[in-house]
Amino acid sequence: MEKELDKILSVILKEVKPTEEEEKRVRDVVEKIISLLKKELTQEHGVEEISLEGSFAKGTWIKGKAEVDIFVQFNPKVDKDSISSLTIKSGIKTIENLGGFTRLRYAEHPYVEGIVDDIQLNIVPCYKLEKDWKTAVDRTPHHTRFVKENMSEAQRDQVRLLKALLKASNLYGAEIRVGGFSGYVTELLIIKYQTLENLLKHAARWKPPVIIEIQPIKIDKIQLSKKFPNSPLIIPDPIDENRNAASAVTMQKLSEFILLAKLFVENPSIKFFHENITSKPLDASRNIVGVFFSLRESKPPDILWGELLHSLNGIARALETAGFKVWRYDAWSDEKNVLMLFELEELELPRLYVHRGPEIFRETALGFIYKHLKDSKTVAGPWVSGDRIYVLKRRTLTKVDKVLKQALEKSTVAVSHGLKKYITKEAVIIVGYDNVIRFAEENGFRRFVEDFLCGRPNYIDAVRNGF
Amino acid sequence: MEKELDKILSVILKEVKPTEEEEKRVRDVVEKIISLLKKELTQEHGVEEISLEGSFAKGTWIKGKAEVDIFVQFNPKVDKDSISSLTIKSGIKTIENLGGFTRLRYAEHPYVEGIVDDIQLNIVPCYKLEKDWKTAVDRTPHHTRFVKENMSEAQRDQVRLLKALLKASNLYGAEIRVGGFSGYVTELLIIKYQTLENLLKHAARWKPPVIIEIQPIKIDKIQLSKKFPNSPLIIPDPIDENRNAASAVTMQKLSEFILLAKLFVENPSIKFFHENITSKPLDASRNIVGVFFSLRESKPPDILWGELLHSLNGIARALETAGFKVWRYDAWSDEKNVLMLFELEELELPRLYVHRGPEIFRETALGFIYKHLKDSKTVAGPWVSGDRIYVLKRRTLTKVDKVLKQALEKSTVAVSHGLKKYITKEAVIIVGYDNVIRFAEENGFRRFVEDFLCGRPNYIDAVRNGF
Repeated sequence: MEKELDKILSVILKEVKPTEEEEKRVRDVVEKIISLLKKELTQEHGVEEISLEGSFAKGTWIKGKAEVDIFVQFNPKVDKDSISSLTIKSGIKTIENLGGFTRLRYAEHPYVEGIVDDIQLNIVPCYKLEKDWKTAVDRTPHHTRFVKENMSEAQRDQVRLLKALLKASNLYGAEIRVGGFSGYVTELLIIKYQTLENLLKHAARWKPPVIIEIQPIKIDKIQLSKKFPNSPLIIPDPIDENRNAASAVTMQKLSEFILLAKLFVENPSIKFFHENITSKPLDASRNIVGVFFSLRESKPPDILWGELLHSLNGIARALETAGFKVWRYDAWSDEKNVLMLFELEELELPRLYVHRGPEIFRETALGFIYKHLKDSKTVAGPWVSGDRIYVLKRRTLTKVDKVLKQALEKSTVAVSHGLKKYITKEAVIIVGYDNVIRFAEENGFRRFVEDFLCGRPNYIDAVRNGF
Repeated sequence: MEKELDKILSVILKEVKPTEEEEKRVRDVVEKIISLLKKELTQEHGVEEISLEGSFAKGTWIKGKAEVDIFVQFNPKVDKDSISSLTIKSGIKTIENLGGFTRLRYAEHPYVEGIVDDIQLNIVPCYKLEKDWKTAVDRTPHHTRFVKENMSEAQRDQVRLLKALLKASNLYGAEIRVGGFSGYVTELLIIKYQTLENLLKHAARWKPPVIIEIQPIKIDKIQLSKKFPNSPLIIPDPIDENRNAASAVTMQKLSEFILLAKLFVENPSIKFFHENITSKPLDASRNIVGVFFSLRESKPPDILWGELLHSLNGIARALETAGFKVWRYDAWSDEKNVLMLFELEELELPRLYVHRGPEIFRETALGFIYKHLKDSKTVAGPWVSGDRIYVLKRRTLTKVDKVLKQALEKSTVAVSHGLKKYITKEAVIIVGYDNVIRFAEENGFRRFVEDFLCGRPNYIDAVRNGF
């Protein structure tokens, strides 16, 4: 058994570990850039250090996916505008000097993204600080140092295996779209548990909320839970105990990771590391509704996905309020087009519904009765059941697209402000399995629709053939 | 306004107050019986008194509905068998001597029911006791005395009006079928509030639980609520503080009475006292299921209705468990045939359903996944939502009659033991509005079906024309 697991892991490691050649190719480019940047910047006022960060710096990168972050570390006395403009100016100049391409990106403040010799890299400004961080990325050099100091060569490969496993299961990444495990969190988990196998054995027994101490900390566990009440996974950052390094991880993704661990421990297989393209069941009795629209502006992904997830939830709740049962929902986007999918129990509401009124002793009881007695849509009642009044009513709209359109027109749907014009005015509502499938084929997202219909995450599909 | 109310009440009083002629006719029969019974019984060992009880004795009876209860009160030293046999023997003899008919009835112990000159009467044995009552009817002579001593002539008419109002609304009677207000409770309420109008003005402001003290009592209200935790209406019996005179009143019927009071106070009308035969709405979109069977044995009504209400609830819960939404249900019986009616949201379940599994951290999580991965009725998933596993399944049965029959065969329906053979083996299940209407017409309970479909109690129908 152990031997089989070793075999699996060695196969995967071959897939994900960069070759020496690749490593050298990236290193050459990085060294050139850093040396050019140093020339550009060291005589500049306030520049204290130029450092290499990211998974490449830590030796935990995956073949073909080197994350090269070059940080320009400033004296905290320099103002934020200056550190940005200086970094952008010399970053662009350096990359262009090497024949690369650049574009500006924004996180908390702007930075330069570039491609040189097919290698993607970021040049990012930050302040050189030991604590009292001024920007979100000031901790990064300390994270890099901590990982380098605390991780053996063998553990770096274990991080690579963990990242591959998480990627295949859509659990990798702290961005809002995913809500999963950042690279730094995967590194901390391997520092704690040494190997992927040991981590999974432990994770299989986790029950949220989960607290993991990388090194002994002063705060006790009860205080920690109170400090991060909405975090199902709490990993105090070793370089800043007041921060939860795993704050991006949602209950959904932590739960999926625990389940993945349980399944893997009982059924180790190479399939957990690969996206399994299985033949999807195509049972046409599924009641699917799609909402499709195209964006006319570009939004940073975390902004777009925040708005998308919020709006998805808002539409689902509006459908539930109208009487539909919403079983599942998900969204796809290439950041230009958006497709939201909902699976409902039924696409049409029953013609009649019971309207629950007030308790008989409320001020509003008689008003409720008078109103419904004279309403032509009253079919039976009002009557009393227990201590409450009810009445049977006829619906005016029953079809899901009509109901949703009316709710959107009445602005009773909680959609994000940034997507409101698209969803309420421009969106195409596609109703029914056949129409959604056809629309997906015509517009190039059949795979997403099939995955949605299959409704089975990769790590569950991985054990499917055994059953 | 007050004048209009007086007019209404005087019209109703004419309908419900017995004429002097009727009163005399009943009194003549009663006097004859008591004098004959006295001759029969006074020399018998242990007979201490023969008394007149019931609404006729208290002067609160309604025209044509004299309740004549003649109580044979025994010394408590006589055993129960003897007081029954002695009462039955001489009761039957007396009534037959007067040319009447008799039959034996059973409550806690047997008594004689007879008809003499079209007047229905009961001859009932009890013990003459001041407290430490030995049978359920030993308090009755004290109730009669209390009402006679504490009620004016005018109040007797107010009781008659209250009874008429409650009868028209199906709130009158302590039997299980009704779960409403006994004659004694109506009398206590009028003793407390003097007039119907004043009672209704107070009742319109009640909020359950309601505690009413007829005379000052020693126990405080909090203790009373604890003593009768399941009673929404608590009226400590003036002749026995440890008893709740209103224990039969259900939350349903108390709520209906409060609502009736509110409606009457705002819209006084003669219609509240009459059963309004309105034109019923016949909207064929109603989803009705009937369960019909015939009894082969005779059961005391309280036994039958206890079993019926329990079984109604059991079937409704079984349908809900199967996935149906049960909006309303009711039963009709002439004590030979039984019809149960259910109104559902739909008569057919959706082909698919979401099955909720365990939380991911439970022991059972993997077993759930393995089981559903290999089940051919799995349509999608399993997937994780939040911290729980779900799976989308296909149903084998969807039609309500099939589903109900299967549940009954599997004995997963909580029906009363006494009705089990009828419901599970013999009952006819009638599905759909048209079939139920036709069945009702053929079998003579169309009125019950129409009332059920209308779903509007009389006291709400009474204010309907105003709207």
